Amino acid sequence: MHNFEFILPTKIVFGVGEINRVGKEAEKLGRRPLLVTGKTSMQRLGILDKVTSLLNKEGLEVVLYDKIEPNPRVTTVDEGGELAKSKKCDFVIGLGGGSPMDAAKAIAVRACVDDTIWNYIYHGQGETFREVERALPIMTLPTIAATGSEADPGGVITNWDTHEKAVIFSPHLFPRVSIVDPELTVSVSPEITSDGAVDIICHVIESYFTATSPAPLQDRLSEGIIKTVMDSLERVLSDPESLEARSNLSWCSSLALSGLINSGRGGGMPMHAIEHAISGHYDISHGRGLALILPPIMDYTHEHRPEKYAQLAKNVFEIDTIGLPIIEGAKLGVKAMRDWLKSVEMYTTFSSLGITSPKYEQMAEDTIRVYGGDRGFLVNPRKLHREDIINLLKMAE
Amino acid sequence: MHNFEFILPTKIVFGVGEINRVGKEAEKLGRRPLLVTGKTSMQRLGILDKVTSLLNKEGLEVVLYDKIEPNPRVTTVDEGGELAKSKKCDFVIGLGGGSPMDAAKAIAVRACVDDTIWNYIYHGQGETFREVERALPIMTLPTIAATGSEADPGGVITNWDTHEKAVIFSPHLFPRVSIVDPELTVSVSPEITSDGAVDIICHVIESYFTATSPAPLQDRLSEGIIKTVMDSLERVLSDPESLEARSNLSWCSSLALSGLINSGRGGGMPMHAIEHAISGHYDISHGRGLALILPPIMDYTHEHRPEKYAQLAKNVFEIDTIGLPIIEGAKLGVKAMRDWLKSVEMYTTFSSLGITSPKYEQMAEDTIRVYGGDRGFLVNPRKLHREDIINLLKMAE
Repeated sequence: MHNFEFILPTKIVFGVGEINRVGKEAEKLGRRPLLVTGKTSMQRLGILDKVTSLLNKEGLEVVLYDKIEPNPRVTTVDEGGELAKSKKCDFVIGLGGGSPMDAAKAIAVRACVDDTIWNYIYHGQGETFREVERALPIMTLPTIAATGSEADPGGVITNWDTHEKAVIFSPHLFPRVSIVDPELTVSVSPEITSDGAVDIICHVIESYFTATSPAPLQDRLSEGIIKTVMDSLERVLSDPESLEARSNLSWCSSLALSGLINSGRGGGMPMHAIEHAISGHYDISHGRGLALILPPIMDYTHEHRPEKYAQLAKNVFEIDTIGLPIIEGAKLGVKAMRDWLKSVEMYTTFSSLGITSPKYEQMAEDTIRVYGGDRGFLVNPRKLHREDIINLLKMAE
Repeated sequence: MHNFEFILPTKIVFGVGEINRVGKEAEKLGRRPLLVTGKTSMQRLGILDKVTSLLNKEGLEVVLYDKIEPNPRVTTVDEGGELAKSKKCDFVIGLGGGSPMDAAKAIAVRACVDDTIWNYIYHGQGETFREVERALPIMTLPTIAATGSEADPGGVITNWDTHEKAVIFSPHLFPRVSIVDPELTVSVSPEITSDGAVDIICHVIESYFTATSPAPLQDRLSEGIIKTVMDSLERVLSDPESLEARSNLSWCSSLALSGLINSGRGGGMPMHAIEHAISGHYDISHGRGLALILPPIMDYTHEHRPEKYAQLAKNVFEIDTIGLPIIEGAKLGVKAMRDWLKSVEMYTTFSSLGITSPKYEQMAEDTIRVYGGDRGFLVNPRKLHREDIINLLKMAE
């Protein structure tokens, strides 16, 4: 196991109906929140009204900023930060899925500085990059089980001018409190629930595949999350109102990126890196982009670390691999993942997304520039240089 | 899943060699630490000298209190608290196993009040019990993988006058920082390492067996911890210097009681409750006492929740239970646990501990008085009243 620091200063208030505590929890953070959310869902479902009313009840002066698009953009964050400053907001609440939560985090930083948020996001060598020195206190209210933004110190922001999607990351971005109320996720459609499930799986499977140090506990915790996500998603697809299954998905989401599962094993997040290049160019959901890249990267990599793919086959898919050569077990693991994606209608290609003539070279270059660091490749058991990424993307044509 | 709050404000610095950061981390907490440890091991191994020297190097004025016995006592804590006050210590460091860490936590409370620590420990209805309102900042430096005191808000203290062993519990007792350096555990004997392993297993298996709400993710995380502890202990017993296996045990220890595994499923900790009554009367190690009670409680309970015991057989012991009646699977789970304890020389009875004529009635009464709350029994799939506990204890004669 590698050395590491584990820090998770977020208080998580978890459970059905806990959204009713939002006022009481919020008043511990300040008096005038900027309430950051998307343009339609929270309004349509009445969740925005409910949250606003609970906040008002405690005497808080809510400033609404409901302009967050999927894959939130630099310009939207900058505008939100200026609004928070002009209205003298003293904390920020992110309500919705990963987009409004990540936007809220970035706005909490932007509200404390005068230059664009893009300067605080690493997006390649030689580009402007400043450390985050402070942020307004952050609260998140997730309404989808997916990104884990409710319990991590990062956020993903897109520069639509340059088609770069990159990560803002700082201990200041841990929410002070997150209210994870699985009941809020009940209205999420099957498609978006499935997108989220794939995102959660990828949050733990990336380290599982790419770890540079053996970590059997972390592996088992990852397998536990993956199996629970798969079981729970299947249940939600047949019974969308199952609070039990929704709760399991939500707790998986919160733990996946909390540091508990991935600490100490090293490795990288090549799928996330490549996906960010995809959804930096095409306005698709993050989970759908991950579903697109997952089978190709498994195909492309499994011969370079077959024992891990065979372990997935045995421990997650419960395939009897006894007596098989490891490479055969590995191939069964790759096949099982592809089959599972098909079974939940998440098997994805560029053509199934309606994207013709994908910009393979451009996406590969963006990936390496933004996520290749000074290495010039993505960390993976089979190193991923520009040409490898083009190959991978073409496998998903 | 039940509703819950998850909070873990402890920063964990984990890894081989990280003890060298103790000075730098400590100076963030104050200037004059009370360094709490046991009477012999840390001195003999040179760890106390090393830690003291690292603290002095940062200019800290260390006040040493090296009087902690196994199963630390109220009188020892009270004396330590008075020492901290008289020397004007501004934080407390617990160095060693669960005993010095728990004592350090209790001393951190006692240093802020004038009455005995026993008044801050719930030990039965109608007894004096005050809420902990504050504590000096706490740092822990665990040298055994066992109690998880490095990442939880509790401590176990024994009143040797009344033979009661009970828990002090408060969010103020979370360490601010814990340095978990697995290299410090390499010198721990096979017996004490095994004691610790059983303690870790029991920290997650109690909720696993007694949960009052289904929680498949928590179950899988528990199974992952149990399997990793078993594998790692076996490796340590054959290769005591394996830093890899020692690291796995240490990370299992830190996570087991952190709230991540047990949150949301309810249940109780009947084995811990009964064990505290045992080691309140007999000066045995906590892990050994748990090993004594584990097979009887499984024997006594499995017919009342056979599906959970069969699940243990299948998922932890990898027993093929397909086609078997659930009760048969459950019995195989009970047998497998007993066999495993024997395989690591942890199978324990009163007679193997040299205890003749155990005070069954007294221990059962103490258990119910201290841990029975206003229910008068311990929470378990088969409720445990006084008579049940006597039966259980007699099974371990």
